[in-house]
Parts: sequence; C-alpha cells; structure tokens
Amino acid sequence: MSEKPVAVVMGSDSDLPVLEETLRLLEEMGVGAEVRVLSAHRTPKEVHVFASEAEARGVKVIIAAAGGAAHLAGVIASLTTLPVIGVPIETAPLAGVDSFLSTLQMPAGVPVATVSIGRPGAVNAAVLALQILALSDERLRTKLRDYKADLARKVKAKDEKVRGEHKSR
Amino acid sequence: MSEKPVAVVMGSDSDLPVLEETLRLLEEMGVGAEVRVLSAHRTPKEVHVFASEAEARGVKVIIAAAGGAAHLAGVIASLTTLPVIGVPIETAPLAGVDSFLSTLQMPAGVPVATVSIGRPGAVNAAVLALQILALSDERLRTKLRDYKADLARKVKAKDEKVRGEHKSR
Amino acid sequence: MSEKPVAVVMGSDSDLPVLEETLRLLEEMGVGAEVRVLSAHRTPKEVHVFASEAEARGVKVIIAAAGGAAHLAGVIASLTTLPVIGVPIETAPLAGVDSFLSTLQMPAGVPVATVSIGRPGAVNAAVLALQILALSDERLRTKLRDYKADLARKVKAKDEKVRGEHKSR
Amino acid sequence: MSEKPVAVVMGSDSDLPVLEETLRLLEEMGVGAEVRVLSAHRTPKEVHVFASEAEARGVKVIIAAAGGAAHLAGVIASLTTLPVIGVPIETAPLAGVDSFLSTLQMPAGVPVATVSIGRPGAVNAAVLALQILALSDERLRTKLRDYKADLARKVKAKDEKVRGEHKSR
Amino acid sequence: MSEKPVAVVMGSDSDLPVLEETLRLLEEMGVGAEVRVLSAHRTPKEVHVFASEAEARGVKVIIAAAGGAAHLAGVIASLTTLPVIGVPIETAPLAGVDSFLSTLQMPAGVPVATVSIGRPGAVNAAVLALQILALSDERLRTKLRDYKADLARKVKAKDEKVRGEHKSR
Amino acid sequence: MSEKPVAVVMGSDSDLPVLEETLRLLEEMGVGAEVRVLSAHRTPKEVHVFASEAEARGVKVIIAAAGGAAHLAGVIASLTTLPVIGVPIETAPLAGVDSFLSTLQMPAGVPVATVSIGRPGAVNAAVLALQILALSDERLRTKLRDYKADLARKVKAKDEKVRGEHKSR
Amino acid sequence: MSEKPVAVVMGSDSDLPVLEETLRLLEEMGVGAEVRVLSAHRTPKEVHVFASEAEARGVKVIIAAAGGAAHLAGVIASLTTLPVIGVPIETAPLAGVDSFLSTLQMPAGVPVATVSIGRPGAVNAAVLALQILALSDERLRTKLRDYKADLARKVKAKDEKVRGEHKSR
Amino acid sequence: MSEKPVAVVMGSDSDLPVLEETLRLLEEMGVGAEVRVLSAHRTPKEVHVFASEAEARGVKVIIAAAGGAAHLAGVIASLTTLPVIGVPIETAPLAGVDSFLSTLQMPAGVPVATVSIGRPGAVNAAVLALQILALSDERLRTKLRDYKADLARKVKAKDEKVRGEHKSR
Repeated sequence: MSEKPVAVVMGSDSDLPVLEETLRLLEEMGVGAEVRVLSAHRTPKEVHVFASEAEARGVKVIIAAAGGAAHLAGVIASLTTLPVIGVPIETAPLAGVDSFLSTLQMPAGVPVATVSIGRPGAVNAAVLALQILALSDERLRTKLRDYKADLARKVKAKDEKVRGEHKSR
Repeated sequence: MSEKPVAVVMGSDSDLPVLEETLRLLEEMGVGAEVRVLSAHRTPKEVHVFASEAEARGVKVIIAAAGGAAHLAGVIASLTTLPVIGVPIETAPLAGVDSFLSTLQMPAGVPVATVSIGRPGAVNAAVLALQILALSDERLRTKLRDYKADLARKVKAKDEKVRGEHKSR
Repeated sequence: MSEKPVAVVMGSDSDLPVLEETLRLLEEMGVGAEVRVLSAHRTPKEVHVFASEAEARGVKVIIAAAGGAAHLAGVIASLTTLPVIGVPIETAPLAGVDSFLSTLQMPAGVPVATVSIGRPGAVNAAVLALQILALSDERLRTKLRDYKADLARKVKAKDEKVRGEHKSR
Repeated sequence: MSEKPVAVVMGSDSDLPVLEETLRLLEEMGVGAEVRVLSAHRTPKEVHVFASEAEARGVKVIIAAAGGAAHLAGVIASLTTLPVIGVPIETAPLAGVDSFLSTLQMPAGVPVATVSIGRPGAVNAAVLALQILALSDERLRTKLRDYKADLARKVKAKDEKVRGEHKSR
Repeated sequence: MSEKPVAVVMGSDSDLPVLEETLRLLEEMGVGAEVRVLSAHRTPKEVHVFASEAEARGVKVIIAAAGGAAHLAGVIASLTTLPVIGVPIETAPLAGVDSFLSTLQMPAGVPVATVSIGRPGAVNAAVLALQILALSDERLRTKLRDYKADLARKVKAKDEKVRGEHKSR
Repeated sequence: MSEKPVAVVMGSDSDLPVLEETLRLLEEMGVGAEVRVLSAHRTPKEVHVFASEAEARGVKVIIAAAGGAAHLAGVIASLTTLPVIGVPIETAPLAGVDSFLSTLQMPAGVPVATVSIGRPGAVNAAVLALQILALSDERLRTKLRDYKADLARKVKAKDEKVRGEHKSR
Repeated sequence: MSEKPVAVVMGSDSDLPVLEETLRLLEEMGVGAEVRVLSAHRTPKEVHVFASEAEARGVKVIIAAAGGAAHLAGVIASLTTLPVIGVPIETAPLAGVDSFLSTLQMPAGVPVATVSIGRPGAVNAAVLALQILALSDERLRTKLRDYKADLARKVKAKDEKVRGEHKSR
Repeated sequence: MSEKPVAVVMGSDSDLPVLEETLRLLEEMGVGAEVRVLSAHRTPKEVHVFASEAEARGVKVIIAAAGGAAHLAGVIASLTTLPVIGVPIETAPLAGVDSFLSTLQMPAGVPVATVSIGRPGAVNAAVLALQILALSDERLRTKLRDYKADLARKVKAKDEKVRGEHKSR
C-alpha cells in the first residue's frame, strides 16, 4: 500500500475541528493520510489537479468534507474513479440539509458515498475508508474488528453502570 | 455587443423542454444565445473549458440549469467573473429541493443568481439575462418595458373577463 | 456610470449588520451605493416610489434584503425592469426558509436573482451586482478578477498551513 | 351593509376553480362579492389602487388567493386596515409550502389571516369572512349556525352508514 | 360592544410572555379582553365550556395560542361560529412547524385564521382582532389607521437615520 | 374481555378504504371492533361523548385515524385513560406531514401512540391493538406469533424466488 | 403482574436525562422497570438477546429511546410481539426529524407506538405504558385517573392565577 | 477474488425493479453478485445470519436497499466490518426522505455509505462497489475508466446534437 492511501480534503479550514477525529482515527489505525484545504468554488483549478492526480500518487480513498452548496465531493468524484466519501458539514442556518442534499443526490454513474452530517459522519468517513482498505489488508481487518468490539464494550460498560444505578435506587 | 451574449447550459438534454421558453424569449428579443449540454459530473473538463473561455468568446451572461446535486451553475461560477444565473430543475423525488439548495447556497464570494424552480425559473432566467444586458442597450430596455406591460395587459384582460362573468351570474 | 449605480434596500434596520460587508465591498470596489430602509409591508408607498424612480435616478442594480414573508425584492421587481438581487435574511424560527421561498419562487416574467441566505448571500449580492456592472466597466472587471484571485490565495495559504501542520505531527 | 362586503381576489385566473366553492358559499349565504384577478407581481399598480380604495367602496373583508412567492395577500394588507384573509394556493412543485409561508409569515403589525392550503382553505376563507360579517348581522349568524349544524349532520349520517355496514358484516 | 369583546386563550401559562404584547396592544386600543389558560389536552371540558359559552358572554373574537400538536384553536373553532385566530407558538425542537401545521390545516367548514409563528404572530392576532372589531367601530378604525401610520413613521425615521449615516461615511 | 374491545374511529368516511385492512385483520384475529365516523372539528360533541363513555362500554384500545390538522386522536386521548393509537392519514398536498405532526407531538401527560402514515400505519394500528390485548389473552398471543411467522415466511419465499431467478440468469 | 413489567431501553447513556421523568413516573405509580443501555448499531447481539427473551422474563411493555438513524425500537419490535413504544430523541443537527421518521415509518405488520420527540415523549412513553398495563390492573387505572385529574388541576390553578393578574391590571 | 464479491440485498421484492440496473451493471463488468430479499423487520434472524457470515463467504461489499424506516443497511453494518452501501428507496408518501435519513444518519463508528435516492442511487451503488473492488483489480479499474469515458461521450454526443439543432434554427 502507498504511504498515504487516504486523502482528507475539506472545503474550508474552519471544517478542520470536525475532521480532527477522522485524522486521529486514521493515525491510530496506522493509515497515512494527506490533508488538504481545497475549495470547489474558490480554488477550482487546484481541486481539478488534486482529483486528477490522486490515483497516480497512490491515494486509494478520498474523504471530502464541505458545507452549504457542498460541491467538493461531487466535483472530485467527477474527476476520478477512486471511491469518494462525502462528509456533509453541519452549517447554519439550514443545519446541514443543504450540505447533505448537495453531497448525496449525485446523478447515476458518479457516486459519492455519503455519511452522516457533521462529527459522527466525520468519524464514519474514516471507518468507511478503513473498511475499504481492509479488504486487501488482513492486519487492518483485525484492527477494525477490535474497534467494533471496543464500541460494543463501551456500551456494555454503560449498560452495567446504568442497570446498577437503577437497581440500587 | 457580441453576437451571442448569452450562453444557455443544461446538465442533461432532458432539461431541454424546460428551457424551450428561455430560448424562445431570447430569440424573440433578438438576443443571440449559444446552447450547450454540459454535465458538471460527467463532462467536468468540458465544463472547465467552457466556463474559462466564455468571457473571451463574448459571452456576457451564463444561464445554467441542473437538477439533483446541481453543481453546474456553481462550478461555472467558480471559473468566471461573468454573472451566472442558476435554474434549479424540478427533479423527482424531492421536487427540486435538492436542486435549488445546491444552486442557491453558494459560499461568500462566488454568487449564483438563483431563480424559481422549473419552468417559471427558466423564463425568469431569460428575463434576468435580458435585464442585465439591457443596462447597456437602450433598445432592449424598451423591449423589456413592453414585455412587462404585456404581462400586465394579459392579467387585466383576465380580470375583465372574470369580473364580467361574475357580475352576469 | 451614475454616481450611485447600486441601491441597497433592507426591510428593517435590524438587517443592517448582515449588509455591512455588502456595503464595505461595494465601497472597496469604488462603486457608489444608496442605502435605504424600506418595508414592503409597513411603507408600501415609499417602496412604490423608490422602485418606480430608481432607473431614472441612475440606479443600475437593486439589492433587496428581507426576512419572513419576504416580499421586498419581489415588490420592487414588479415595478422596475432593473435587475433585482434578493438576499433572504436568516430569521427565527424557520432559519430563513420562509425568507428564501418568498424571495425565490417568483412567477414567470418577474425574476428576482436570489442569493444564499444571510451573510454569505449579502456578500454575494455585492459581488453579483459588481459582476453585472463590470460587463460595461473594464476597470471593475479587473478588480473582480483580483478579488477572485484573492479568494483563491487565501484558501491556498490555509491549505499550506494545514498541510504543514499535518505533516509535522 | 354594502352590497358587496367581500372582495375575492386571485393572483391568476388559473386559481378560479379553487375559489368556485368560495364564491358559491358566499352567494348561498346571500353575501355579495366582487371578484378580481390582480397580480402582485404583474399588475402592482392595479393591486395598489384596489387595496387603497376597497374600504371606501364598502368592502369589509378581502379574500386573497395566490401561489408560489405569494405576496398578494401581504401587499393588500400593507395598504388597508380591513381584515385580509390569505388562501395559499397549492402549486407545483413545492405543494404550496412556498405559498403558505409567503402568506403566513407576515411581520408584526400587518396580519394576514391565513387559512389551509388549497380548496379546504378556499372554503374556509368564505366561512371566516362570513363569521366576521356575522358579528354585526344576526341573520347571517343564524345561517352560520345552520351551516355548522349541517356539517355535523352529514358526518353523523356517514357515521350511521358506516356503523350499519360494519355491524352487518 | 360588550366590555370584553376579545378572549385571549393560551394552552399553557408558559405562553404568556409571547402574548404580553397582544394584551398590551388591546389595552392600548381600549378593547377589553378576558385572558384564559386552557389546555385542549389537559382541560378539555373547560375548553368545551369556554368555547360553547363565549358568544353568549359577549365575546366577538377569540385568540388562541398553542404549540406542538396545537389543537386549541381548532377545538374552539369546532364549538363556536365566532372568528377564531390561531397563534402558533414557537416550540422546540421543531421551531413551531408542528404548531402552525396543526393550527393552519383545518378541514373545509371550520376555519382558523392563522397568523405568523411566535411573537410577530401574537402582535398580529391583536391587530387582526382589532381590524375585525373596527368594522363596526369607527373610533377603532381611526386608531388602527394611526397605528399603521405609526408603523410607517418608525420605518421612515430609520430610513432617514441609515441614509444619513451612509452618506457621511 | 368485552365483545368489542377495539374502537376504530375515523375523521371522515373517505378514510374508510385506508382502514379496511385494519378491520379485516381485527376480524381475522377474532377481535370485535366498533367502527365510527367522528370528526373532531365537525362533530365535537359526539367525539366528547364517544371518548368519555368508551371505557365504561368495555372498549380497551381506541384507534383514531385523521388527516390534515389531525386533532381526532389527541382530543380522544384528552378524554380517556385508555391507550389511543393514532393513524396519520396521507392527505394532499403535504403528504401527511401535517397529519402526523398533529397526531404525534402531544404534550407531556397525554400520549397518542402514533403509527406510520397511511395504509402501513393502519395495519400497524390493528397489530399494536392486538399486541396490547394479547398481554392478557394467551390465545391472541399465539395468533400474533403465527402472524409474525407468516410475515417472515412470505419474505423468505420471495427471497427463494429472487435468488433462484438471479442464479439462473 | 411480574415485578418489572416495563423495560426502558436507551441507545446511549447520554439519553438517560431525557428518560429520568419516565423512570420517576413509573416508580411513582409503583410499576417496576428494568433499565438498559443497548445500541442497535454497537451492540446488535445484546439487543437481539434482550428482545427475544423479554417476554419470557415477564416484560409486558418495552420503551425504546434512540436518536439519529434510530433503529432501536424497530429492531426490538422485529423480535417480539410485545408492544414497543418508541421515543425519538431530539438530536442535533436535525432536531430529531431523523429520529422520529426512523422510529415512526415502520412497515405494515411491525408497529412501533411512537410518541412525541424528546422529553414530552419520554413522559408520554411512561403514561402510555401505564395505560396499557392498567387495562388489567384496576388500581393502576385509578392512579391514572388521578394523574389526569392532577394535570387538569394544575392548568386550572394557572388559569385562576392568570385571570386574577389580568383583571387586577 | 471470490466468485460473488458483491451482495445485493433488498428489504422487499418490490424493490427489485429499482435494482435491475445495479445487477445489470455488475454483470456487465463481470462481477458476480448474490441477490437476497431480507427484511430487517420481518426476517431479523435471517438478516443477522446473512450479515454475520457474509465476509467468511467471500463477500467484499454489501449493497442494501430499503425504504421507510429503512433499517436494513444499518442493521447489516452493525454486524460486519465490510463496507455497506445503502440505497434509500423512494417510497410514498414522503418521497424517500424517511428512507435516506434512516439510512444516512448512522452513529459514529458504524458507517453506511449512502447513495442518492431511488434509481440513480441504485446505479451508483453498483459503481461505488466496483470502485472499491477495483482498488485491487487492475482490469476492473480499466473498465471503470471506460465506463466514465462512455458517460462523457454520451453527454458530448447530446451536446453536439443540441448545438446543431439550435444553430440551424
């Protein structure tokens, strides 16, 4: 695998806090990522170059986060056959409804793999990218199973705690 | 003025019927138009070339019609400083809500002049383009005043008719 | 060109903060603007006079900002053939959905060039007005190209910064 | 009372079928109505004249039906202190959501009495107008009580029918 | 006219702040009002008694404010032929969309005169009630014209102020 | 158990086709039902009587179906402590969004058990009523388990069919 | 009746504050409840076991609260014939619209009794569970009647207070 | 690669027509698929078995299509670490809004790669699955590039046609 099989692109550096967990999770799983601020509307040429050259550079999966008339993921998807994951940023005043409809409603032939709005979606973009990479990486598959087991463990711990508290009332 | 100061671009040739009235009105007003089928997602390079070269070719105003995750107007607006008018196509199943949010909610600095959804918007795109061109074309200004007077005349004729019918009941 | 080719009209003086950037940008670009508080519902006669006389006074483009049942842009558009740009104000409790539907959904023949909700739209109204005026003003065209280049430069600077930070982790 | 205490105004003659029941009900109750086709956006001056002179002409209540960016009721309400009833016309593609938000969301001080979308609302506009007129017309009050009793009677007849059918199964 | 021709009913005493302006405006205009807290869902029998007896007690217009599954105005309207004005309270988490649809979408024959959501609507409910009462009260008609003129005066004062500030920059 | 432990109430006899399956399923399961047409807005007194006396008559569960400003289930719930199941009828033009918000968004203390919009909800109202009655009826419990098994069987048969067809291509 | 006839399940322990009133009300009414944190997406196997064994353990009614793509109530309903009450948690950024559509729109045959969004719904889930249990528990029926009377008493006390304050102004 | 690296699962056999193009495209690209009808709500155990065993059987990517409270993709995603693609079926009366919110809004840690509503989404699910498989399949990568080039070719042909027709008018 290339050194940086994931590219994480955001439409504005104000989206960076939403993507912190995405970057942390990829790092934790030992998967390299290039991180870019690229605006479909303000730096269209840079987006064009980025998307056209990503595959040749060894990128396997692209995560694109944008808000409002969120064209970033769609524009990238129009220029590559790599899987593109779209994270609809939660933006005022429409709570991200504009973001996810602009990301989700792609025409036949040019998919964007859309995940939930905002932070949960940003985490899920990383997990989905890892799931895709894990198809040809046994070590990553094991890590993902551990991650999933850990999610369950945390819920079970809380279940124990809440049951205990309720019984003792 | 150049021979074809208006460019009418649609994301799919299935949008052509919606734009028939747009083209008819421009023709009626004696304003030339180039007509293109260009998809932001299927022919991104052609859109890039079109938008980058439009001004040099003498285009003054661009009308872009698209549906769903409607990126066409926004992508063109990112590549030119010509005024871009966006027509949100009414598309199933979301009735064009996705189309107009994707067209309307552009970030600061890159406007798309969005008009109403579907056919009324397609007419309005032509009228708006004509209003813009008329700023430096006295003859067109007169035609637009006649057009507006004609709209009023038609309503008044109907008003007469309906009043007459109601009185005679 | 007249001294004040742009008119910026708002439905209430509480909309003024949203329009500050609009006014600043026009000023920065050396384009004069008259500024008015006119309510479609509270001062209908003043709106009527304003809209009917704007063209004769040398106004080229009208920017109208309003919220709720936002009739201001539409009422002005009904009384002039100048291009009218509508800024839907973000208003509680419906986040501006009422504002933009009231502004956008104009009937065939009477367009309002609607821009995004709230502050980004207020900036875009100025940019769109400038783009329209620039069609017959070479100097303004150059300034708009610089403005667009500057938008790109800022994103690229942030791209550099974010890439640097991520590499150095 | 004046001969025609109710004015029924519609934005387009295509709204006439929706208002047939309104006119029929007013007629049935013996209340005269003037009927007008007036467009807030195509015949703004005629709307202005109509609304400014209605009270002097003896109109007591104005019913205004319009669709899309439905400004008709609001514009009339801005020019008179007569009660104005707004009927949001059900219009494609947004099912009348634009119509009722444009009609309903009036600013403080300028009410529009909005009724349900489309045909049920058109009937209700007539009933509401009659309820208002009945405040100073004992005979009309009696008719309205009969009308209400008749609504109940029809439901009760259907209740009998359905109960009977179900029992006999 | 009876001493208290208006009844102002709210579904919960938490709605009282929204209705303060309603009550103040009625008082200012010299129109008496009875004020009630009545819940369609918690005190259905009291609502029944209230609505059935209102007309006999001299009430001319009923203002009903409620939120959520807002049945209050509709239930009252089902039990009287007096005009009922519905104020949809802005309630979390749906911003009053549930409130106004529950209030607005009444079946044919049983109108609720719905006004805008929340505080602007609460003011408008008072104005609409006054407009209805003014039909048979010349003194009130004059007051309403003054009120409307005052609304215009305030906007014009702000217009002067904003124009002045902008010129002097 | 009483002979008719379920009451099925509809706001209009036009809702009857939607409820046919509800009635058929109750009959099939051997559970008696009284069927009523009662309108919260047109026959409020009849609804009052019905809801107040239902428990004494042996009714255990009430199913109430209504559309638009759907107050029927809520009004009944305000007058009884029996479980009330609300079926939001799919009504034009808002596709039942008004119906389900009016039914669902009840205030604390007065629940309506809301099921899905339209026909699937009408079936589910019957199943939910049966599930409630089955808590004290072993025979009904068995029947419900059979019903659930049958639902699964039908899906499995279709799964077999589709798998077969796909394999043989 | 079993010792714990109600099971209260939440998708995350962050939902616990919303359910505090649910638990308090059940306790106050003397009805035992088991409390669980179970995630349809993170602990699917535990949900499976819980739902499959609930009836055998003496559970009569299940309350399931979840937000976002809220599958918890539906998944449980798919595995039991006990009545399942769904509480849509109010979650950012969509205010719980995703939560209630995911909970409400179940296919024919597998009902979820959905209550209002958030805290009012959480209270109503308890009341609905109690109403269901009360069908075979006379003592509980009396308590529910007292609870309902108390709701009315509180509103009436506020009515007295507000009427008093308004009169004395 | 296994013989059937893609699993296409639908919640009901009525979804089959929507998925025809999905199956055709996979077949055309030479990628085997198993096809299943599995209902999250009617055959929960079968879904459980399917999802738990898919990876062991050689499935690489799962496409799950469902409508309404569309839990199918989410339930499968909860039981596997394979990438799961969700196709929201367009279902009456809410046009698939319930379907895509139920599919999209997954909690952090359990992604569903959601594609556009209905038929375009069904095509995109196949393309996305192919894009994922192509990461380790050079031959498939070439085919996808050809597919993308073909999409462009078709638009360009239509562009030629429309330009020709418009010129010759």
